[in-house]
Parts: sequence; structure tokens; C-alpha cells
Amino acid sequence: MADPADTQDPPYEDEVELDEPRLRAIREAIEARDRTQLDDLLEPMHGADIADLLEQITEAERATLLELWSGHVDGEILSELEESLREEILDALPAEDVAEAVRELDTDDVVDLIENLEDTDQADAILGALDEIDRAAVEQALTYPEYSAGRLMQREVVMVPSFWTVGQAIDHMRHAESLPEQFYHVILTDPRMRPVGHVTLGKILSSPRETPLSEIEEESFRTFEVTEPEAEVAYAFNQYHLISAPVVDHNDRLLGVITIDDAIRILDEEAGEDILRLAGVDSEEAISNRTFDVVRRRFPWLAVNLVTAILASMVISQFENVIAEVVALAVLMPIVASMGGNAGTQSLTVAVRALATRDLTGANVWRVIRREVVAGGINGLAFAVIMGIVGVVWFGTPMLGLVIAVAMVINLVVAGLAGVGIPVVLQKAGIDPALASGAFVTTVTDVVGFFAFLGLAAVWLL
Amino acid sequence: MADPADTQDPPYEDEVELDEPRLRAIREAIEARDRTQLDDLLEPMHGADIADLLEQITEAERATLLELWSGHVDGEILSELEESLREEILDALPAEDVAEAVRELDTDDVVDLIENLEDTDQADAILGALDEIDRAAVEQALTYPEYSAGRLMQREVVMVPSFWTVGQAIDHMRHAESLPEQFYHVILTDPRMRPVGHVTLGKILSSPRETPLSEIEEESFRTFEVTEPEAEVAYAFNQYHLISAPVVDHNDRLLGVITIDDAIRILDEEAGEDILRLAGVDSEEAISNRTFDVVRRRFPWLAVNLVTAILASMVISQFENVIAEVVALAVLMPIVASMGGNAGTQSLTVAVRALATRDLTGANVWRVIRREVVAGGINGLAFAVIMGIVGVVWFGTPMLGLVIAVAMVINLVVAGLAGVGIPVVLQKAGIDPALASGAFVTTVTDVVGFFAFLGLAAVWLL
Repeated sequence: MADPADTQDPPYEDEVELDEPRLRAIREAIEARDRTQLDDLLEPMHGADIADLLEQITEAERATLLELWSGHVDGEILSELEESLREEILDALPAEDVAEAVRELDTDDVVDLIENLEDTDQADAILGALDEIDRAAVEQALTYPEYSAGRLMQREVVMVPSFWTVGQAIDHMRHAESLPEQFYHVILTDPRMRPVGHVTLGKILSSPRETPLSEIEEESFRTFEVTEPEAEVAYAFNQYHLISAPVVDHNDRLLGVITIDDAIRILDEEAGEDILRLAGVDSEEAISNRTFDVVRRRFPWLAVNLVTAILASMVISQFENVIAEVVALAVLMPIVASMGGNAGTQSLTVAVRALATRDLTGANVWRVIRREVVAGGINGLAFAVIMGIVGVVWFGTPMLGLVIAVAMVINLVVAGLAGVGIPVVLQKAGIDPALASGAFVTTVTDVVGFFAFLGLAAVWLL
Repeated sequence: MADPADTQDPPYEDEVELDEPRLRAIREAIEARDRTQLDDLLEPMHGADIADLLEQITEAERATLLELWSGHVDGEILSELEESLREEILDALPAEDVAEAVRELDTDDVVDLIENLEDTDQADAILGALDEIDRAAVEQALTYPEYSAGRLMQREVVMVPSFWTVGQAIDHMRHAESLPEQFYHVILTDPRMRPVGHVTLGKILSSPRETPLSEIEEESFRTFEVTEPEAEVAYAFNQYHLISAPVVDHNDRLLGVITIDDAIRILDEEAGEDILRLAGVDSEEAISNRTFDVVRRRFPWLAVNLVTAILASMVISQFENVIAEVVALAVLMPIVASMGGNAGTQSLTVAVRALATRDLTGANVWRVIRREVVAGGINGLAFAVIMGIVGVVWFGTPMLGLVIAVAMVINLVVAGLAGVGIPVVLQKAGIDPALASGAFVTTVTDVVGFFAFLGLAAVWLL
């Protein structure tokens, strides 16, 4: 017989997630202006989910929620909100709420909160709410370049002299006036305040008090220069499985520490940026943007595409007389261009991703290009046979089948070459390959596709 | 005067990164079969970088490196290798090296290592190298569904009764026979071994010995069911900034713990998968795959695209007589289709990304669709004006300008609608929108683009 206690609820209360039924219930409570219901629904929710909720409802619903809800927008919710909404929410909050929310945050989160505020009054109000030491730390951080390690780090660190023992370190932490909200290492420094190593808290907890810290420090230790780009920092955290790492000035003196949560945020942002950029969308676009923002953010890429499409049309117009004679060419020509465009996009995406993860380097670039070209040729041959048959069956002209088959092979080989070659060349030139490759590659495959198909037709069919 | 000590090297030695010069030097050392040089170059490198190196060089270079190098492939390097290379490397290593490497790993890393090995002899050899307890843990983990929390967790946990004090917990850890390689929380359990909360190591270190652990436990506490999908786990780690979380069975008993490094690996894999799938590339494709693998992995998507391209051609063929009369239509028609395809891909990518980050939900889906349709209409109007003028100037036929302008507006509106609507519907149907949306959206924009343009031309120009 099953033990009845086994089927009891777990002894703790989990925070609830923001699922569709809860979302609907919250919107109904807002609609009904039911304050009690709203409070009950929001009470067990995590700040990150409340931020998501605020992003998903309408502006009117947000205003009602903020008016009715007896809870308050705390530092965590503010940090989690996407930038386009922060100013709206900050405007809606009483000054004392903002001050209280901001004081809960570590300095790196305050920096993240205010660095992109367009409203300088709001930024000043936030800075004014901080105590003197934190304000100085935030103002100092803002002097470092955007997207640098200095903007990511928090000033709150736990450091001890490298010659101390486990017992000394524990006593120091027990008597410290304030410790960071979260920390994972005790940093060992030399007399010049330069970090020389670090010890995990687990090692400290499992070692006798008299153990010298230098005996149990981690074998692998990395520091970051304060001006190092955040992308490099995030890459290193991911590559070397770091959990926290010290940031130093150009004299190697300890300035602060970057923790894994900051690195994850950057990794997440970068993955999202690459996906959007590959499709020609401004990487800062958010789902809560207004229509006009969307129009403005999409327009440039469509304009680029228009130019490339016109280029392709100009190729076609060179062959107007051929098309006039064999109208079937107009029917079939988009197939060659489309297959080339898709094959090129496949190669391009693999290459852009491999460049981002640093798997495509000088050591294998020629091998990868050769592989893509050969793969393009083989798939080209396969589809050439298929399309050759389709061409013959559909239009009853064997020569037409041959034209489309040969054009297909040519275009898929070119697609493989351009798909890898273009992003690699752009990266060498210091241009983000995710951003610009797509336009180049499809221009190449369109132009080559139409030219090969119509050109061969002109020679062989007329 | 500057303090001369300030310009000294930092007092620790950083591990070196695998940059292009080092990569070249290593390949030269392999080529020259210079064992000493090779050892010197590899010695300061992190295991993750050595794994990357092995992925980037040729098979022949790998064989020479493994033969010459006096270091050995350790557990970390094996874990970091991409799957397609693991079997090759495992085959090349002496059995005792494999055994030693595997014994260094936590159980979750062993599971990751062997779960996809096709060579069962290799898997058996690895299992055989483990001690009895670890082998039982790995075999148990392999009974959980693929891509579930049970496969991600490590069995090594630090847990204490929830009524203990800080001092008791520290003494327990000091005397524990073995502790996990990395851990961040002490898990509090009830007498039934059910986790009821957890305490960060930082809180334990900064509290007096007599403090009850229940007084300093974290406010926010989450557990995962062992069968929960790894994608849900990774989402929660990212959303709620978790650093480690217990895994429980269906009776809420503690089974193991998932740590942030596992979650990052999943997040990273998923972002990569979405990028590749959107371009119609098999998400398991790796840059070190052989040509034939690449051909096989790319073919299916190109085949789907061929079918959709033929569909579009069949639309065109309905208007052969119109094209025969006005050949300019053949020149201009790809522009309308191409602009629609690009606008659709923009909307689609934004929608797929927002679905993945759970920013697109029932609360805002209609607003987002309306926004995309209106944005498509506005951009459509802008490009309609431009293309109308181009049409008139290029071909001198005002009516042709009007045809292309109206077709452009129609296709960009449809692109916005299809771009959001199709991934949302696919997601509802349980199909990965990243995988399948692209084909549907471009089919719609091709068909609508050609039909609107040629259809209007047939009505207005003939």
C-alpha cells in the first residue's frame, strides 16, 4: 500500500509561473478593477514574471494595474523590464517608490537601469536615491565604455589577503558590515590590491579553519580588464564555465567582480541579436514596440532588399527578347533563384553561427568553404535531375530541362561559396556578418540564378 | 613619477586563449612533428580550448597530435568535444586513459558523454570504468527520458536536516567523505528526504555558528520534477536567475541537483538550434561534419523549398498569356515576391524569437498581429510609391507603376499577417515554429505576390 504521506503536497510553497490561465485571470481582474483578486494573483509571482506581465498587457491595463495593485514595483521588476517600458513605468511611479526600488539593487543593476534612460531627470532621480558610496560607484561605472566589463561588474566584492587562513576568512565574513547579495568566491589579493587567485565558498566550508587559503585556491583563474568588451567576457564565462571573475584596472588592481547572471544576460541578448539580424530586423526591436517603431526598424532592410531585387530585375531585363519568345522561362526562372537563395542562406547561417561560437577559424575556413561548395554541387546535381525531369514533363522541351538543370548546379555551387565566403570576408573587415551577409548572399544567388538560367536559354534555345 | 611596480606583470599566470597565432603555431608543430613545441603550446591551455582545437584541425592532424602530445585527453576535454568527434577520439585513446578521464567527471557529465554514443562497446567501457555507486547513478539517469531534468542533474548533493544550525552544517561539510566538485547551496530536507528550502554558501559563511539554517534560507525556492523537459529547466534558470536547484521524484524526494553550467549549455544549444532551424538547417549540424553529412542534412529543406517554388511557378504559368503580351511583367514580378518574402521573414523571426522567450502570449498576440499588419501596410505604401515611380520611369507605363504599387501593399500586409500568424498557429499545434514557419511564410508571400501582381496586370493592362 502506498504511504499516504507520499501524496501530500511538498512542504514548501513554489512561486507560481505566469501561464496563460493566470494571465487571463489577471487581465480580467484589471478589467473588473478587482483589487483583492489582483493582489491575490500577483502575490505569489516572481519579479521577473511580473515584468513580463507588464510587457504583455496594454498601456491602459498597465496604468490600472499600477493604480490598483497594493504591492509595489521593486528593484527586481525594474531591472527585468525591457528598456522601452522602463521610462513609462518610472514616470508612473511615485518618487519614493523609485528610490526604494533602486536602493535594493547592486550597483551593476543600477548601471544597467540608467545607462540607456533618455530622460535625464529620471536618471538624476535614481542617482539621487543612492547613498554616497553607491552613487560614486555607479557614476564611476558610467565612465567606462558602453558594452565593457566595467559596466557589467558590481563593486561589492569579498576579498582577503592571500596569506590568510580559512578561519580568518570566515571570521572576516561573519563580521563584515555588508556582503554582496550573491557571491561565489573569496578573492585573494596581494598587498597592492591585485587579485592573485580565488577560493570557492564550498572549499572554504569544507576545509579546517587553519588551512591556508592559498592551498585550496582554484587551479584555473581569470581576470578581465575593465575595458574589455562584454561580448568577450560572456564568451569566456561560457567557454570556461566561470561562475564569477574579478575585474581589474590597467594596473591589475581589483575593481569589482562579474557574476554568471550578468554573463547569461549578455549571452542571451547576443543570441537574440544574431537571430534578428540574420532576418534583417533591428536587434533592439522588442515585442512591445509600437507600430511606428516597427515600421522604422524594418524599413532600412527592406530598402536594401529593394535595391538588390531591382538589380536582379535588371539582369532579367537583358533577356526580355528571350522571354518574349519562350514564356516558359518566366515561369521557371524564380525556381532557380529561389533554390540558390535558400541554399545560400543555409550555408550563410551555419557560417555566421560558427563564427559567433568561434568554431570557424583560420584553421578550417578553407576546408569548410570546399565542403560547402562540394555539398552545393552534389545537392545541385540532385535537384538538377529532378527539375530537368519536371521541365521536360511540364513543357515537353528536353532542352529546357537541360537549361534549368545546369543553371541549378551552377547556382547551388555559387550559393555554397558565397554563403561561407561573404560572412568570413565581412568578419575580417570588422563588419558584423549576421547583419550584412544576407543581402549580399541573396543578391549573388538571384543575379547568378537569373543570369545562368536565361543566358543558357538564350544560347541553347534560340 | 609612476610607481615601477605598477607596470609589472600580474602575479598569477592566466591561461592562454586559443587565438589565431597559437592555432597556426600548433599546426606547424604538428606538421613538423615537434613534440616539445607542441607540449609547450598546449600546456597552458584550458580543456575547453583544446577541445575546440581538436574540432578545427583535420583528422590527420588530430591523429598526430594525440600520438605526440605528452599530456592526455582528460574528462573535461571529452565533455567539451562535439558529439561527432567523441567516438573518433575515444577510439584513438588507450582504454586506461578513457577510464581515468571518465572518473574525473561528475555523473551528469558522464551521462552527457555516453547518452548519444552509437558504439555500445565504448559506452560499456566507460560505464565499466566507474565505481559501483557512480555507475548505478549513471544507469539510473539513463532511464529518464532524453532531454529531461533527470539527464541534466548530478547525484552529488549537499543536504542537511532543516532543523540544523550553521555550525552543524559546517562541521558536516568539513567531515564529509566527498563533496561535489562545485556547489552553491546547502539543501534543507525534511525527515522524508523532501527538500524544503536551501541556503546559499555565502549566508552560511557570514552567519554565526548557532544560527538555525531555516532562519537564513532563500526566500525564493524552486524544485524540478525529474521528468521535466530540459528546455523548461533552462528557461526557469534564465528567468529566475537560479544558480542551482534540486531535482525531485514524483513523491518530492530529493534525487539530485541541476547547476547553472548545465542550464547555460542547454540555453546555448537552443539559441543555436533556433538560428539554424530558421534557415532550414538540421539543428545538429556541426562545422566539423563531413561533406556527405552536410548534403544529407541540407537536402530535405531544399526539397521542401522546391515544392513551394514550383507552386509559385504554377501561379505564374496561369498568366503566361499576360506575360507574353507585356514582357516587362516578367522583369518586375520577382521584386514583389522578394519584398514580400523579406517582410514576412522579418515578422516571422520576431514572432519565433518572442515565442521562444515567452514574450508573445495570448495576452498580446492579437495586438502583435494587428501591429505587424499595419506596419506591413505602411511600409508597403512607402515601397509602393517608390516602385510605382520606378515602374513608370523604367517602362514608361503609368498603369504598370500602379499595378506594382498595389501588389506591393497587398503582399506586405499579407506578409505581416502570415509572419506572425503561421508561427503562432504552428506553436499551438505543437510544431516547432522555428523549424517549419519559413517554408509556409515564403510560399504565401510568393503565391500572393505573383498572383496579385500578374492578376492586377491581367485586369488593368490587357
